[in-house]
Amino acid sequence: MERPRISYVGACCVAALTASVPAAGQEGADVARAWRQGHEPAILREFSELLSYANVASDAPAVRRTAAYVRERLEAVGVEAELLELDGAPPIVYGELNVPGATRTLGIYVHYDGQPADPGNWTHAPWEPTLYDRSMEVGGKPIPLPADGQAVDPEWRLYARSAGDDKAPIAALLPVLQAFGEHGVRPTSNLVFFFEGEEEAGSDHLESYLDAYRERLDRIDVWLFFDGPVHQSGRPQLTFGVRGSMGMEVTVFGATRNLHSGHYGNWAPDTGNVLAHLLASMQDADGNVLIEGFYDSVEPLGREERAALDALPPYDQELKRELGLAHSEGEPATLPERLLLPALNIRGITSGNTGALARNVLPSTATASIGIRLVKGNDPARMQELVERHIRGQGFHIVREDPDLETRLAHARIAKVTGGGGYPAARTTMGDPFVQQVIRAGQAAADRAFGPGSLVLLPGMGGSLPLYLFTDVLGRPAVNVPVANHDDNQHAPDENLRIGNLWYAIDLYAALLTMPPAVVP
Amino acid sequence: MERPRISYVGACCVAALTASVPAAGQEGADVARAWRQGHEPAILREFSELLSYANVASDAPAVRRTAAYVRERLEAVGVEAELLELDGAPPIVYGELNVPGATRTLGIYVHYDGQPADPGNWTHAPWEPTLYDRSMEVGGKPIPLPADGQAVDPEWRLYARSAGDDKAPIAALLPVLQAFGEHGVRPTSNLVFFFEGEEEAGSDHLESYLDAYRERLDRIDVWLFFDGPVHQSGRPQLTFGVRGSMGMEVTVFGATRNLHSGHYGNWAPDTGNVLAHLLASMQDADGNVLIEGFYDSVEPLGREERAALDALPPYDQELKRELGLAHSEGEPATLPERLLLPALNIRGITSGNTGALARNVLPSTATASIGIRLVKGNDPARMQELVERHIRGQGFHIVREDPDLETRLAHARIAKVTGGGGYPAARTTMGDPFVQQVIRAGQAAADRAFGPGSLVLLPGMGGSLPLYLFTDVLGRPAVNVPVANHDDNQHAPDENLRIGNLWYAIDLYAALLTMPPAVVP
Repeated sequence: MERPRISYVGACCVAALTASVPAAGQEGADVARAWRQGHEPAILREFSELLSYANVASDAPAVRRTAAYVRERLEAVGVEAELLELDGAPPIVYGELNVPGATRTLGIYVHYDGQPADPGNWTHAPWEPTLYDRSMEVGGKPIPLPADGQAVDPEWRLYARSAGDDKAPIAALLPVLQAFGEHGVRPTSNLVFFFEGEEEAGSDHLESYLDAYRERLDRIDVWLFFDGPVHQSGRPQLTFGVRGSMGMEVTVFGATRNLHSGHYGNWAPDTGNVLAHLLASMQDADGNVLIEGFYDSVEPLGREERAALDALPPYDQELKRELGLAHSEGEPATLPERLLLPALNIRGITSGNTGALARNVLPSTATASIGIRLVKGNDPARMQELVERHIRGQGFHIVREDPDLETRLAHARIAKVTGGGGYPAARTTMGDPFVQQVIRAGQAAADRAFGPGSLVLLPGMGGSLPLYLFTDVLGRPAVNVPVANHDDNQHAPDENLRIGNLWYAIDLYAALLTMPPAVVP
Repeated sequence: MERPRISYVGACCVAALTASVPAAGQEGADVARAWRQGHEPAILREFSELLSYANVASDAPAVRRTAAYVRERLEAVGVEAELLELDGAPPIVYGELNVPGATRTLGIYVHYDGQPADPGNWTHAPWEPTLYDRSMEVGGKPIPLPADGQAVDPEWRLYARSAGDDKAPIAALLPVLQAFGEHGVRPTSNLVFFFEGEEEAGSDHLESYLDAYRERLDRIDVWLFFDGPVHQSGRPQLTFGVRGSMGMEVTVFGATRNLHSGHYGNWAPDTGNVLAHLLASMQDADGNVLIEGFYDSVEPLGREERAALDALPPYDQELKRELGLAHSEGEPATLPERLLLPALNIRGITSGNTGALARNVLPSTATASIGIRLVKGNDPARMQELVERHIRGQGFHIVREDPDLETRLAHARIAKVTGGGGYPAARTTMGDPFVQQVIRAGQAAADRAFGPGSLVLLPGMGGSLPLYLFTDVLGRPAVNVPVANHDDNQHAPDENLRIGNLWYAIDLYAALLTMPPAVVP
């Protein structure tokens, strides 16, 4: 495909930032919207092609094919793109679009890898994108991808792994840049594209990449994280922090082999019961963590953040109705309030079998996968230490490998604890001048797509990104700019993107790329 | 195969039961033992053929092939055999061997079906019997089946599903009857063979079979249950009761779909945690059940039973060493004492995933499979009621099907409870005159095979059999006569029989079949 010629003329007449000027980026946004309206079927077909690339980080050849494809698509819309490489790591798709005279550089983060998917639990194969006329959950039916000229309903949904998390931003960025190129719209910032390939696998090499390529990244003034879903109400949002994340796996041990529950039940340790007691000791039935010190290191919120929290639309009741919940943990505390506390979640428990495979055995082990979400102030290593101290306090001897016979005979209760690691939370001050510009551009795009005053500003998001590497290590403000529908089933089977959210992303990115030039402080 | 001619002459000169006569059944036992010693390789090969028949009750064609084969083998050794049938049930292999003048009828129960087996967890395919030169667990190696004339080591083990539970008794009965037939040994009782085909599936049709064929069964004076392993010390045993058994499955519910643990963790109910609390509320960490009334209906032991308990060899320490346990539930109570209490065991827990498949989700359900072992006095329906009352007491609304949205929105905590059913425990009075005869014959065989005084008499076994149908519904004494090695991995992968235990079974059955004629009370 021939690279479109880009002439930077569009944004020259946008006024400097004041309260009275027209909405920021209006002209660029108009161009992108008009272009989108003229090319909706083609945009969907291109998105579908992108989604057909398998992208689990552990599948190195697949993730490399995805990276090469994304790089090629960026180059097709005028970005100087390349693959950054480190040994044993998925490549970073890196790109630059430099604008002569620009006084600001935006860093645009996306991750092109996706969560693993068990095809058995999906309605369609995870990497065979399937368009629906609305959400499956309200009876949507599969429909073919539209041909040019066919009308596209924003309530359509495209189902595939990574539809929402996190290929949608790529699918929206490409048409914006294409439209700008075709119509000579000039971004008002230099753009640096930094697309990661192992975010869902824990971003093990991200710090090394940032370190190895720091020289190229240090000029970035503000990072925009294109990832995550919008507010649960369906309203757009910007968020200024993420929780950190770490995972641990705990296995408790009974006899060296599965035992017949008739001959040994009531005498041999019942691993399911032992694990249940250990887990129940960690938090009360309502999710309040009982591990000593778990909440002690939480950093209090600032004035601006608290004000934003107070301004949030009430949404818990509607969300509970949608999710079939009569009760939420920590009621009457709301979801945004609960997300400002560290959480301990049981991601999975396995011991023996249930259902048709259940047998009369005492399983020799029981295992829980524990996810911990961290907030600003929590140090992952310290949190792991607290959890392990708690496990020891419950009478367990902690091992890192399956215990040998001698160890078993020496300790009444043994827990194998593995995992840990993870990364801390991050929070960006909402008062930062670059951040204020982003907020205004976001408000303009949201006002237009969803109505005046629709943009939600959330000091802290529940999900996790390795944002601390940007805010704390690189030392730059970072704003999370989510676009996916909140019910996108990310990290779960039947992940999907609502098409209207893709249109919103195009509006939003166009506004951000053409927001008024920075007033150099 | 030509049916061997049987002439009933052997046991005519055995004296009536008194303390001073020679050991009961000595002559018949001699004949069987000598015959076995002359045919050991052939006996193993025939056992191996029997084990190659798949026998999970839910696989109707397989279980029917097994039944037909067993019937044919019984007929080959002089038993009038047939298949009893009820709609939708595996057949009973039924046989009679009537002895003119006999004043006593023994009922011999075996089950020819076996536990389901997941081949992925087995060293060899479950129905491809493999001989080992000793137990796999002490480094045994596979060896070919022996040819005629080759020496057979009693420490060899034959690995296959049902090797111990419960095809070994069939493999031992056949040579005894063959030997008796060839050598003109006459059993001292009429024999009724009653081989069940769905014991491991819950014996759903057993009561109907006993009812439909009650006329044939009412003449039985004492039932002998050929099933289960010997004492954990390796010493032989007779037991006079079994625990009843019931199973329940409990599922707790979170949101209608799996949720991202980042965006909803700390707010949406964490099903693993909710289930852990429910399970932990049912018993303490040491297996003492906290459900109100759970222990109230336990019937106290009689004088003879308590004496037998006191005479049991201490074995807990050795068993714990073997199983790698530093602690047993309810210490210092011993295993036999703990088996006289009802038990609540967690057979399995499933929620989300652990290990490589673990993801950052809040699973929408968490399920526990609960096994309950009952003792004399516990009524299954009443026990289920107690458990359900407890679940309600923990704040759960109980449903029988997955809840609809309306139900979810009406109740903060919902538990789907299924299963139940099951059957009660049974206990036979050790002082019964028929039972006393069985004890003496068992003692003689045990003295001979394992040394004087080796037979352990256990008032109550941990495992479960539908023995109550015989003791309480048919109203006859029933003695459990186990022969399998205690480490036979029954109900687990790599089930096996130690060959020495097959030889013991032949000694024992020969003694029982030729025990002194009953003194009619």
